[in-house]
Amino acid sequence: MTTVESTTLTGEMLLGAARVTGRAGTLTARDPRTGADLAPTYGLGDRADVERAAALAAEAFGAFRETAPAERAAFLDTIAANIDGITEALVERVGAETGLPEPRIRGEIARTTGQLRLFATVVRDGRWAGVRFDTPLPDRSPLPRPDVRQRMVPVGPVAVFGASNFPLAFSVAGGDTASALAAGCPVVVKAHGAHPGTSELVGVAIARAVAAHDLPEGVFSMVYGAGREVGTALVADPRIAAVGFTGSRGGGTALMATAAARPAPIPVYAEMSSINPVLLLPGALRGGAERLGEAFAGSLTTGVGQLCTNPGLVIGVDGPDLDRFVDAAADAVTASAAAPMLTTGICDAYVTGSAALRAHPEVTEVAGGRADDAIASPGVAHLFSTSGAAFAADERLADEVFGASSLVVRLFGTGELAGLIAGLEGQLTATLHLDPSDDGDLALARELLPLLENRVGRIVVNGWPTGVEVSTAMVHGGPFPATSDGRTTSVGTRAIERFLRPVAYQDVPDALLPAVLADANPLDVPRTVDGE
Amino acid sequence: MTTVESTTLTGEMLLGAARVTGRAGTLTARDPRTGADLAPTYGLGDRADVERAAALAAEAFGAFRETAPAERAAFLDTIAANIDGITEALVERVGAETGLPEPRIRGEIARTTGQLRLFATVVRDGRWAGVRFDTPLPDRSPLPRPDVRQRMVPVGPVAVFGASNFPLAFSVAGGDTASALAAGCPVVVKAHGAHPGTSELVGVAIARAVAAHDLPEGVFSMVYGAGREVGTALVADPRIAAVGFTGSRGGGTALMATAAARPAPIPVYAEMSSINPVLLLPGALRGGAERLGEAFAGSLTTGVGQLCTNPGLVIGVDGPDLDRFVDAAADAVTASAAAPMLTTGICDAYVTGSAALRAHPEVTEVAGGRADDAIASPGVAHLFSTSGAAFAADERLADEVFGASSLVVRLFGTGELAGLIAGLEGQLTATLHLDPSDDGDLALARELLPLLENRVGRIVVNGWPTGVEVSTAMVHGGPFPATSDGRTTSVGTRAIERFLRPVAYQDVPDALLPAVLADANPLDVPRTVDGE
Repeated sequence: MTTVESTTLTGEMLLGAARVTGRAGTLTARDPRTGADLAPTYGLGDRADVERAAALAAEAFGAFRETAPAERAAFLDTIAANIDGITEALVERVGAETGLPEPRIRGEIARTTGQLRLFATVVRDGRWAGVRFDTPLPDRSPLPRPDVRQRMVPVGPVAVFGASNFPLAFSVAGGDTASALAAGCPVVVKAHGAHPGTSELVGVAIARAVAAHDLPEGVFSMVYGAGREVGTALVADPRIAAVGFTGSRGGGTALMATAAARPAPIPVYAEMSSINPVLLLPGALRGGAERLGEAFAGSLTTGVGQLCTNPGLVIGVDGPDLDRFVDAAADAVTASAAAPMLTTGICDAYVTGSAALRAHPEVTEVAGGRADDAIASPGVAHLFSTSGAAFAADERLADEVFGASSLVVRLFGTGELAGLIAGLEGQLTATLHLDPSDDGDLALARELLPLLENRVGRIVVNGWPTGVEVSTAMVHGGPFPATSDGRTTSVGTRAIERFLRPVAYQDVPDALLPAVLADANPLDVPRTVDGE
Repeated sequence: MTTVESTTLTGEMLLGAARVTGRAGTLTARDPRTGADLAPTYGLGDRADVERAAALAAEAFGAFRETAPAERAAFLDTIAANIDGITEALVERVGAETGLPEPRIRGEIARTTGQLRLFATVVRDGRWAGVRFDTPLPDRSPLPRPDVRQRMVPVGPVAVFGASNFPLAFSVAGGDTASALAAGCPVVVKAHGAHPGTSELVGVAIARAVAAHDLPEGVFSMVYGAGREVGTALVADPRIAAVGFTGSRGGGTALMATAAARPAPIPVYAEMSSINPVLLLPGALRGGAERLGEAFAGSLTTGVGQLCTNPGLVIGVDGPDLDRFVDAAADAVTASAAAPMLTTGICDAYVTGSAALRAHPEVTEVAGGRADDAIASPGVAHLFSTSGAAFAADERLADEVFGASSLVVRLFGTGELAGLIAGLEGQLTATLHLDPSDDGDLALARELLPLLENRVGRIVVNGWPTGVEVSTAMVHGGPFPATSDGRTTSVGTRAIERFLRPVAYQDVPDALLPAVLADANPLDVPRTVDGE
């Protein structure tokens, strides 16, 4: 064990302030561009490590939850500053571990630190505390009305699972961690095995902020683990109160089952699977099929298609306009260069998924991107096409193929749209392309919007689903299987609500009330009184 | 089949506007005061009836969710008025089916209609819609910021399970139904078998309001069913989007398991099990042991102890002050008269549960109320006592005994309190009795309050947990097993949030936006812009 000081990669886990080498096997990162192994070797944790991290988190919770909003906000700002301070090290290591291009990495660093600073603002603002007062009515008959005050409190230690496809913005210090810490919950991260070095760099940045703010060490821990054993142990640990996860449907539903089977079940916020339907209405196609086809291919190939909001399904009415769209998209896809996918596993699953589409008797491959044998885990874009009847007849055609693969569904007429939407599973997004000056498109959109609302967390008009703004009104969520819990969002300020619950204080003397509820309102937190 | 017109009891279910006699067996209500059967006989529904109700609810959802707030509020007000209109019939039938005294029934009618009218106010107010705007920044670099607007939408049809112990306020038109309808969700009620006539009266009052407001008939349905088959089918139905339940831990966890095992899991809001610890701090005992003992017995025997917030656990430091408390409570309990319990089943479980306490080698029976052989299902109050060590050693001593039974735990010293609290399961409430002028009590309360916060939904000081105010700041919730979902409350205005989820609208033209999000804000709903 050594103390947390350096940013040199060591291959150790962070159990509070201690750095510990896991003894349950090893893990080596791999450069998906070259296939080369990346030093150092990471030691994998076991149940005892999970228990230690959970115990430290539970120990830290009492003090951390009582930190004043300004203190917690300053802590989040320090994490952001620490990450800014290791930008160049991150650019290099993220590039080596993920194959993502440098501009994307720099953008994701900015997104990650921006997210931390946004949650600092949210914490300072105080509305997250949801303070409500009911004025007592001591003379009310037949019974007096008591003095009742409500605030939100943090739920307890949160387990966060890093995502493969956003090694920073949805990983160790990503949206789940930022919102959980903002809420006052200690965090135990299970680092994603695809980017252990990136995780270590960021984990140390957080641990240094914990130390700098004299917070209890258990506010943050990070473990490594292969397979599901460590993750399952973490979710099953009685000290863990909620779970944040971004990843596959299989992984997410396994964690949901573990959480539901606990003696005391806990909420799981898993963001899992979405094919993000894009509906091309007739007027939009008429006016701009080529432009739309080209722009669609741009959205499809962003990040080698490895985005939760990747447009995996395009729906339009068969005919010359849709042909022009498909031709333009096919040209762009054909011209697109292969690029490294994040991991061998993701690449293999992508190859299998797109091969299954290609082999389907009702599916035609419209275009494929350029291969590149020099890349160890190449992602090659693919565009497929099928009919509305075939799509309706085989639910496997609606399975997510994670990567730059999309399926164009050619309908006989717009009359098929409502039924197709009704048959879709829950999605993160739905996109409508329409001509706002075309009465037919507007009428159709009015009919379809309520149906889409029931299926998705975000509706985009005349844009593309990729690119999720981190803001106050954003929803990155949606009904199952897009997420495990459609009542919330994992991006944007509302994400903090996932880790809070209300408590009421009835006739508690002012001297004993938490500061946010005290008469004098020393923290100047907004409050509603009798609903006003 | 007949149409919904009369308030004469028929024994039929309500499947939308149709009245249908269930064919899967029969159910007869029983007067717990006399044991006499009550006409009419109720026909029990089957899976086909559940499917019909769910199909009607799904059909109704599209139109009901789009109703303007004023329209939905007026509908809730009409339900309240219809219930007011059948007050005398309710007083008679609830009395016969539950044995509850008339003042309680009249109070519960007022609470039920007050709750409906409160949710009408909440709906009109519009803040439930959670409208948030992000101002677009078309010139932002490197990428423009889109126009994003967020609102809450209803989740879909809700299954509500009527509770035995609040035949009105937590049953057919109770808090779950009121908040689900307020959110824009159709409701399918599974009526509680203990009060089918009460359920029919109230169900018809709702169905008449549905018809009066020209709403789709599927906005409300009500089925009867014995055992778990009908309830399980309802929760498993793919058209049901959320569940509200108040009842036993066994029943609630069974519904949780059914919901989690669905292909698309749904949220369950089950309010289940709580022993509502009451902590008597030394200063409070010193100053008012007798007064507290007597008041405690009053809270214990309210509603024959059949309240979720019944004080089933009392904790104090052993000694003469606690003796005085126990003596006073014992006198009051001894003098208390038996009263009818709600059902034979509840009475049997109460007898079994209190007998198990009595038989426990470390438990002493301190007092028992007066028996009454004239009552068919008599509830007799019981007060037991044990030591802190015995309580810590056997978790069965913390099991809920539903009824007027309570266990006094005598500690060696206040040092045992923190450990005892840490060992408790989640609770709806915790109560502290303290002397606000006693520094020792205040210091102890400061130490214990954060621990209690982690275990409960509501903290009461110098009062009693029974009597739950329906207001804006109330929390009737708490960690498992008090509820299945501690992030929320089933009483008070925040209960509407259980049946809502956020949707974001990105760059949607004004002409296509839902009214609450349109630039002109025709419904005058409050909105925040960029977090302000």
